[in-house]
Parts: sequence; structure tokens; C-alpha cells
Amino acid sequence: MSINQSDALDSGAADLLALMRSETGRVVSGASLSRELGVSRTAVWKRVNRLRALGYRIESAQSAGYRFVGAPDTPLAQEVQLDLATEVIGREVCYRPSIDSTNVLAVEMARNGAAEGTVIVADTQSRGRGRLGRSWVSPPGCNLYFSVVLRPSMVPAAIPQITLMTAVSLCGVLSEAAALPIRIKWPNDLWVGGRKVAGILTEMSSEMDRIRHVVVGIGVNVNVAGDGLPEDLQRTATSLTLETGTHWQRVSLFRGLLQALDRDYASFCQAGFAPFRSRFIERSMTLGRRIRVQMPEGETGGLALDITEQGALRIRRDDGSVVDVLSGDVTVLPEI
Amino acid sequence: MSINQSDALDSGAADLLALMRSETGRVVSGASLSRELGVSRTAVWKRVNRLRALGYRIESAQSAGYRFVGAPDTPLAQEVQLDLATEVIGREVCYRPSIDSTNVLAVEMARNGAAEGTVIVADTQSRGRGRLGRSWVSPPGCNLYFSVVLRPSMVPAAIPQITLMTAVSLCGVLSEAAALPIRIKWPNDLWVGGRKVAGILTEMSSEMDRIRHVVVGIGVNVNVAGDGLPEDLQRTATSLTLETGTHWQRVSLFRGLLQALDRDYASFCQAGFAPFRSRFIERSMTLGRRIRVQMPEGETGGLALDITEQGALRIRRDDGSVVDVLSGDVTVLPEI
Repeated sequence: MSINQSDALDSGAADLLALMRSETGRVVSGASLSRELGVSRTAVWKRVNRLRALGYRIESAQSAGYRFVGAPDTPLAQEVQLDLATEVIGREVCYRPSIDSTNVLAVEMARNGAAEGTVIVADTQSRGRGRLGRSWVSPPGCNLYFSVVLRPSMVPAAIPQITLMTAVSLCGVLSEAAALPIRIKWPNDLWVGGRKVAGILTEMSSEMDRIRHVVVGIGVNVNVAGDGLPEDLQRTATSLTLETGTHWQRVSLFRGLLQALDRDYASFCQAGFAPFRSRFIERSMTLGRRIRVQMPEGETGGLALDITEQGALRIRRDDGSVVDVLSGDVTVLPEI
Repeated sequence: MSINQSDALDSGAADLLALMRSETGRVVSGASLSRELGVSRTAVWKRVNRLRALGYRIESAQSAGYRFVGAPDTPLAQEVQLDLATEVIGREVCYRPSIDSTNVLAVEMARNGAAEGTVIVADTQSRGRGRLGRSWVSPPGCNLYFSVVLRPSMVPAAIPQITLMTAVSLCGVLSEAAALPIRIKWPNDLWVGGRKVAGILTEMSSEMDRIRHVVVGIGVNVNVAGDGLPEDLQRTATSLTLETGTHWQRVSLFRGLLQALDRDYASFCQAGFAPFRSRFIERSMTLGRRIRVQMPEGETGGLALDITEQGALRIRRDDGSVVDVLSGDVTVLPEI
């Protein structure tokens, strides 16, 4: 497979970036950059322009040289990986300014042998996807859309647990960062104030008894404004900005999400689902509520009782029978 | 995706085949074939040669015409589909004389939208695959290697059940056809007389709560002779021919397998795993035996007690504890 690396830095530009970043705010002469990097001043100038095209703010200081002012708040690989404290997730980061769907590329890369922890992130998606064939609206310049390749040594039946573990991890970081009472709507959405703020789409390739790879796709509405969403979503979707009135640094938030997921995934692989089940239950907006579930085989409903060890939603129906639901679309009914 | 259809009949050759087959054993003049089909005698001659190249036995009767003697015992689509009594499985059959692996092509076709029931069959595989990354030795001209695309409306956790249902279906047809005491070695192999005669490799693509497609790959050692297998397999593998001393018609056996699988899959989709669980248990060579299981997380062993409703193998270990194994490589220990 050929991966278009046009938005990855070549090593020349990466060297210049490192050098200039270490002198942030100070004017550095083209001559000294040229000397330090061992390339011509024209080459320096070309690299500066390459960085500028990616959104780096580099001022030209009246023939005295260049001043590095700042990096863009765009999840470029080199920005995300700067001081990224993870073991596995984000060792490889592939950024795309625009893509059909980060999951589609991640699945393709996983099939072609991409290492566990490979992350695909895009500024915008033209065909962002949600669970059950739905779309995920993905405007540019404001939110986070990314997919992570995992290769857990587990049976396929673990996939709901992987989704729930991810929801717990995501919920922890976003709640804490934004100081918001974010809740999980089983199985894969995060809600705040009655609206959806993030979602997860998990895809798996497996044999009967072992997972080959799982791609966990995550969309977080970070800075999107109300009018950045289609009208029909404005009543059901929100963003961190809409809830807090603050603009959020995407890159730093993204790094936090990857770090938490790295820790949580390692813990899940080692200690299993039980701790995440407790955390999921604590943060669930579904449990204890009356719900309706649309399942492939029909509709059911009742009181949401529990999350099982498999990651199913346990419901007590009105006739007293108890069922475990592994697949379905939940509507939480208004409290009477 | 482009599917190389070079071994599918064009409609002209298919028409000629139908016409000649209806006159099997009788000499039909080129002139009358030319008239019936509305094409030149040269076109008839070309089509005859096309059919001969596929293995059809058509004699030229001294300028009097052609005599259709018989079809090859090769699982060509038009042979397999002749009087195939199925609803879903085999509506599309794609035959390849040689392929890397029928599962690889079936997975690719499934991803590109192949209909449920599409069957890929090959005369030989250069990289036939078994479970746990093993290979499946696939010599030409003697055995059956095929893959079926399924799209059950089920959760991913159903995949072991799909494998076990397939094993039961396959075991039924082969036991009955060959009048052999074939047994199932959990989860996916058929054994007779202490040797493996058939195997199943199931692959799945899914979301967290719905299967997109399952590809069930099946290899059956039909007519392979002892020296048709590599030396290291001769003590562990066998074939219907080796067990019965009879040569088996591949196409007719294949049709029987597809018909049984079509029925069993429909019943599984409607009525679930329970009836197949009973049939699996009846035909299991594992249950009631002392076994050793190599699992991803280590080895265990004990007495094989049961097959669970999920399709797991339930074991009582020597310390009395009972565990359900969903993934592992079983060795049945010799009876003491």
C-alpha cells in the first residue's frame, strides 16, 4: 500500500523545526541556520516555507533572519508526538488534512501490517462514520477525528469490552480537562447536558478465536460552534466549547487522550475488563433509567440494570424478564 | 475490484454446453449446432475447443459432428450450479484453477460487496491457510477448497457458533456420503481414524455489535493419495479415498456440502445454535476425553466436559476448577 506522506515532514524540515522551536521568539539568522543544518540559505528558505504551509508561524525579520512564533493547533504528527508519553499508542502517527474516514485508512493500514498503536488523525473527514452505518459530521479546523490500530491477543467476543474501555478512557480525560459532567450512553457515545459530544466506532478483523486487529475510531466535538453543525444535529450534538465557552487546544487534548488510552489499554490487556466495568457503571447515563432498545431482531425496553462482564447492557423488561443486550440502539426515556 | 473471469463460461459456450449436454453420447452435426445456436460453424468449433480446454470430453466424430461424452469432475461454476438445490449458498460461484487462498479472494470480494452465499472454489491453492496461521496443503485435481461469504445479522460473539455449525454440517455430509465414523475435533477439524480429513477457517469483519461479513473457508481431503501429501502430514492427515479405497466425485460431493450448509445456515439464522450444539456434542471426538489446550495465555488441560451455548469448550481441570475455553489448540490425550 502506498501511504501519501505529503503532510509528514521530511527530515530536513523536521531538523529546521526542532532548531527553530528551541529558539522560539528569538530571531535566528538565515546564515546561522544554514551553518547549523549544513545546507544552503536557499534550502533553509524552502524549508521555512514548507513549515509555513503546514501552519507554523515563522516571521521573516527584515533580512536579520527568522523568528519562530508558534506551532499550529493542528494534530500534525510531529506536534502530537512532541513529548507524547505513551508506550504503544501514537508510536506512529499519520496526519491527513482531509480524508474520507480515518477508520477506512486505519483498517487498510492494519490489513497491511501497521504496528499496534498506529494512529491516523485528520483535520476533516468527508465521510466520517458512526455506528450502525451512520455518518459522523466532521467539519475542519475545530475537532478531533482519529483512529487507533490495536492488536489485542483476545477472542472476538472481547470487542464490546474494548469499546467500553475506550469510552471510559475518553470520558475520564474529557470530563477532567473540561470539568464537565460527561456521561457514557451505552455502548459508545459520550453525552453532556443532554447532547452528544463524542462517539466511538470500533471495527474488527478476526478469526473465530483470535482478533487480528481492531480499529478504534474516535470523534470528539472540541471547538465546533453551534452553527458549525447541520441544523438537525444542533439539538442533539454539542462540543466542549459550546459547553464551557472556552476554546480548547486540540493538540494538547489529543495528546492527553492518547496517553490515557495507552495506559488504559495496557491495563485492560493485563487485568481485563472488570475495573473498566466499574468505571463504566459509575459514568453511565443509561443505568437506572427506563430505556427503549432498537435491536436487529426487534424492539425491547425496560429498566437498564447493569453492564455485564461481557459488556452487554442488562435490562429488566416490564414483564419482569431480564435480558442482556449486546447490540442495539438505546433511547433513554424521559424521567416521569 | 476486477475479478478474473477467465474460467467462467461466456454465454456462447454456456449455450453450446447446455445443448450438447442434452444430447450426451449422441453425435450432433456441426451444421445443426450452428443452426440451433445461430452462429457460424467456425464459432461452434471455437466454443467446442473452449469447453475442451476446461476439461469437457467432446469427441469429433469423423466430420459427422461432435459427441459430448462427459463433464470434468472439476468444480467449475456451471457444473456445481447444475441442479444445485440451494436458496442462498452458491447463487454465485467463482471457480479458479489456481489461487493463493480461496479465503483471501472471498474476503476481498466480501469487502467489495459480494452477495451472501457467494462461493469461491479452487482446484489448488498455493497458500492455503488453516487456523492459527498454519498452512493447508492443497494439491490440485483431487480435493475441495472453497470459501463461502455469509452476512448473518448477528453479534461478533456468534463467530465460534458459526464455525461449529459449519463443522456439524460438513461432518454430517461427509460421514453419510462416505459411510465413515467422522468426528469433530473442537473447534474446527474433522477427523477419522485418528487423522484429519477436513478443516475450517472462519474469518470475520465486524463492528462492535454487528457482523459485516464472515468468510467460512473449508478444505476437504477427498481423493488425495498418501503420497500426495508431504511426508510430515502422512501420519496426521487422511482423505476420503484413503479411508474408503474409493474414488469420489468431487463436484457431486461439493454440491451436497453446499446444499447441507445452505439448509443448516438458514436453520441456524432462524433457530439459533442450540440444535447444532447437540449435534456437535454427539459428533465430538473431544468430549469425555482428557485433553491439553494450548491457549494464547498459556497451557491448560483436564477433562473435556461440554460445549457451551457460546460454542466454548468446557473443561474440568485436575484441581476441580471448570473453565470455558474459546480459543486454543487442543490435543486429545491417549486413553490410558
